[in-house]
Amino acid sequence: MSSENKITLFETTGFPNPARIRAALAEKQALNDVEFVEIDVMNLEHRTSAFYAMNPLGTVPVLKTAEGVFISESTAITEYIDAYFDGPSLTGGTPISRGIIHMMQRRAESLVMDAVGAYFHHATDGLGAAIESYQCSEWGQHQKQRALNGFEYFDRLLANQHFVAGEQFSMADITLFYGLAFADFAKLSIPTSLTHLVEWRERMSTRPCFSHH
Amino acid sequence: MSSENKITLFETTGFPNPARIRAALAEKQALNDVEFVEIDVMNLEHRTSAFYAMNPLGTVPVLKTAEGVFISESTAITEYIDAYFDGPSLTGGTPISRGIIHMMQRRAESLVMDAVGAYFHHATDGLGAAIESYQCSEWGQHQKQRALNGFEYFDRLLANQHFVAGEQFSMADITLFYGLAFADFAKLSIPTSLTHLVEWRERMSTRPCFSHH
Ligand SMILES: N[C@@H](CCC(=O)N[C@@H](CS)C(=O)NCC(=O)O)C(=O)O
Ligand SMILES: N[C@@H](CCC(=O)N[C@@H](CS)C(=O)NCC(=O)O)C(=O)O
Repeated sequence: MSSENKITLFETTGFPNPARIRAALAEKQALNDVEFVEIDVMNLEHRTSAFYAMNPLGTVPVLKTAEGVFISESTAITEYIDAYFDGPSLTGGTPISRGIIHMMQRRAESLVMDAVGAYFHHATDGLGAAIESYQCSEWGQHQKQRALNGFEYFDRLLANQHFVAGEQFSMADITLFYGLAFADFAKLSIPTSLTHLVEWRERMSTRPCFSHH
Repeated sequence: MSSENKITLFETTGFPNPARIRAALAEKQALNDVEFVEIDVMNLEHRTSAFYAMNPLGTVPVLKTAEGVFISESTAITEYIDAYFDGPSLTGGTPISRGIIHMMQRRAESLVMDAVGAYFHHATDGLGAAIESYQCSEWGQHQKQRALNGFEYFDRLLANQHFVAGEQFSMADITLFYGLAFADFAKLSIPTSLTHLVEWRERMSTRPCFSHH
């Protein structure tokens, strides 16, 4: 494959994990260097053999590199983008910042993004019967509680620091931001008593990477 | 805190996620540069306030850096170790290798390590009633099926390449190796018909990082 191919992002508008990649590209000023292809999840385009060939797990986003390699998993795609494009580091430039950012990234994913996702897909109608082919509502309810605990954890954390991984913006902020957006979508409300979390979110919402796509 | 403090790993012998860190340190020839502290999970030492202060999620491993910062989540700890110590890269040195390694690392975790863990903790007696304070056996059985599919996925992958992320050893091999060890422990057998996976595992088991601790 030619190395002159444009990097391509296979995404679905309005979905939280693909949005993470848009935000990472915006931080790197690289939105114009990438081609975007819409995958119609509501019509099960992500469960076709053509899509499974790009990502056997059948999830968006998927990025095709300039060399033609398919990368899935939002954290992995963010690692690729961060190393490929110039601009401020989203994954950390020192051993300690790499460790902290990856730790917080994983916490934002497991305590918020994935917990909200499990609640939405298992304990509500989710995306509808055609897509939600397996549901375990007891598990979904348990993960709802995990998400609520996660909101409280991040509220306490953000009482003492400006960003999720400390004093610098990182991919962990991106994941938490879209995890909370997913919570809104799933009608899981974020208690207004969590003032540090609410303030952080307001501050983030004015950041260009989250407002201009 | 003095920067001359020795790096400390809080771990539990015989558990798969802490073993990932031992293997990463062995690859970096850094086992002698780290102090090891045993956490008695069977006696709930990981659910004490002293432990939660190090890791609010209450899981091992946790690493304390030379500066006194606590890092949890095995991938994050591996990132720290890989950047801190010299030696062969475990997380990739180019954009594309970083992307592929993180993708495969996440697949090894979600399709094997975490799927086996969910089966073990939810659908079997796990570590006993005192530790397994919440179980959802339906979810555990579903994750067992995910693990079995995961074994097949990695078997197909390893038909065409020597290591999980391609032609070089990486943290993704470490995660899959201990994910399979966890499957043995959970009595989830790996079909002998998966010859590529079985051969990869035999090859790995002779690698010093997996045999000399
Ligand atoms: N761990 C994956 C999760 C991706 C994911 O769950 N994507 C959702 C959209 S936000 C999806 O593809 N859902 C469709 C489905 O699961 O059927 C990542 O980090 O990219
Ligand atoms: N995502 C975590 C998982 C850590 C984990 O689940 N550790 C297990 C031991 S292998 C544990 O602490 N189990 C005790 C418990 O969950 O009560 C990581 O990557 O480190």
